[in-house]
Amino acid sequence: MKKIINKPENYTDDMLHGIYQAHPDMVKYVEDDLRCYCTAQKKEGKVAIITGGGTGHLPLFLGYVGENMLDGCGVGSVFQSPSAEQIYNISKEVESGAGILFLYGNYTGDIMNFDMASEMLEMDDIQTRSIVGADDVLSNKNPDARRGVAGIFFMYKCAGAKAAQMGTLDEVLAAAQKAKDNTRTVGFALTPCIIPELGHSNFTLGDNEMAFGMGIHGEPGVWNGPVKTSRELAEESMKEILGDMSVASGEEVCVLINGLGATSQEELYILTGDVEDILKEKGIKVYRTFVGEYATSMEMAGASISICKVADEEMKQWIDMPVHTPFYTQV
Amino acid sequence: MKKIINKPENYTDDMLHGIYQAHPDMVKYVEDDLRCYCTAQKKEGKVAIITGGGTGHLPLFLGYVGENMLDGCGVGSVFQSPSAEQIYNISKEVESGAGILFLYGNYTGDIMNFDMASEMLEMDDIQTRSIVGADDVLSNKNPDARRGVAGIFFMYKCAGAKAAQMGTLDEVLAAAQKAKDNTRTVGFALTPCIIPELGHSNFTLGDNEMAFGMGIHGEPGVWNGPVKTSRELAEESMKEILGDMSVASGEEVCVLINGLGATSQEELYILTGDVEDILKEKGIKVYRTFVGEYATSMEMAGASISICKVADEEMKQWIDMPVHTPFYTQV
Repeated sequence: MKKIINKPENYTDDMLHGIYQAHPDMVKYVEDDLRCYCTAQKKEGKVAIITGGGTGHLPLFLGYVGENMLDGCGVGSVFQSPSAEQIYNISKEVESGAGILFLYGNYTGDIMNFDMASEMLEMDDIQTRSIVGADDVLSNKNPDARRGVAGIFFMYKCAGAKAAQMGTLDEVLAAAQKAKDNTRTVGFALTPCIIPELGHSNFTLGDNEMAFGMGIHGEPGVWNGPVKTSRELAEESMKEILGDMSVASGEEVCVLINGLGATSQEELYILTGDVEDILKEKGIKVYRTFVGEYATSMEMAGASISICKVADEEMKQWIDMPVHTPFYTQV
Repeated sequence: MKKIINKPENYTDDMLHGIYQAHPDMVKYVEDDLRCYCTAQKKEGKVAIITGGGTGHLPLFLGYVGENMLDGCGVGSVFQSPSAEQIYNISKEVESGAGILFLYGNYTGDIMNFDMASEMLEMDDIQTRSIVGADDVLSNKNPDARRGVAGIFFMYKCAGAKAAQMGTLDEVLAAAQKAKDNTRTVGFALTPCIIPELGHSNFTLGDNEMAFGMGIHGEPGVWNGPVKTSRELAEESMKEILGDMSVASGEEVCVLINGLGATSQEELYILTGDVEDILKEKGIKVYRTFVGEYATSMEMAGASISICKVADEEMKQWIDMPVHTPFYTQV
């Protein structure tokens, strides 16, 4: 295992220590627990949005806590859920009178703990709503059973903007739902990643082998085979995405080309060019393009393509609203 | 070679095609040459700043072309210099009456071509000045012979800000010089990277071997040996940096923790925590921290640590000036 770390068992907390050192003006923790990650810029009367999930996906999940996005994040160990108590403690800190939206990825452990936190908050008369990201088309035929991956960015963006516009809890939930309904992702991995505490990857890929449809925790994909070209990967991904969500010629979409960790920005832009060429060939207009690392799997090589169909003018406002977090700034 | 690409020989141009597709409002090219990369938001009467260098280091070099930073970038093939003619053509496009600063890394091919472009512009009565980044402490004992690496970011930031403040050509040069005088970098690699057209790396590192002091083109480091811990790497790097540039207790610095490509953001923040702990132990104050990919070597694993001593209040203004490029936004 080649990583720049100290003790593997301190991976998550050492990372958090560095983040708080680097950005003390923007984020803080509560209850003396580094994993109870909260904005340092609470806004009174605003719906609070809380996310959470395992470590190993930066900037997901905590990287989106900041101005006009999220208010708190429960941080689990690598690929593990945060506890219900941590989510509860964050909630008590960031809630400011308008209720809380829980917005996180569709994983069993997370659902259990967020639901438990919700029940604990109910006893304190704090209102919550929950919605999960489930954008990974290839993870399941049933949309409700799909995993949440990089496309959750659009849910964060839209819900965060609606909350910043001082929408009600149900309006903020509806904004997240609108982004969810219009977003699809397909991803593929070229190498595995290593969980620090294990010291090895939990699967292998051959010298010229890739996994199409693989999840960000290494969940098996729909095929393993020789590495295809960027254009071929773009075509196969777009076929899956547009087969699952129809986008007509003349309609507008946002494109998110996400690196899984070890893939160079050069490659991400080569892929971007191919994806946008395909959209152009179909007469689909690109409203805005996002390229970079939005949801990773530590040092996994690979990428994902997310398409978010622009539903209406309101959604454009949400997408375009400036945001500022330690990990992501948009003007 | 596992990369998301099409034909290896089209790597640079396919990448540029994607960048222009993604960010048509911000950047453009001239002379029908994708590699003549210019801002789409030229500002009259401002000193133009032009950089350049080989492909394979995104966001270096072209990623810093944008609002309050740079105006153009000559893009070479992977690890190759752009041509003098390309630099000349970019210069003719972005120059707007106040002269041009050439600001790039200290590499032989680049120096030759920028100098040649300078002579060509002189014949057109366009004034130029040149300065090279040479922040890599371990690359040479002689400061003038050092390579330019991630620390060039602070030169871009300061010179870009001074130009945005409508400084004269010599004032913009002086701002770059001030950043240069106060910036030092040490880097280390855990894996090599592969040049697409070659299809293999030009060196190897063993299973638990790293190279301390290695350059971003794979130039040999000062030692190869077993992978050390983050804290050990931080200590050894800070010893080299502070041995080369004295920073007294109570003085302020900016910290830039840069990923070389394949290293996870989690690891970069673990390293950040260790570097800032060391600074704290020495009574050195951190004015601002930057963490992420600022100068890479495609999919090389590793990191670099840059320290920029805050020389005065003017420099703080430059560091803090908002910037906006397709690759880097600061508010």
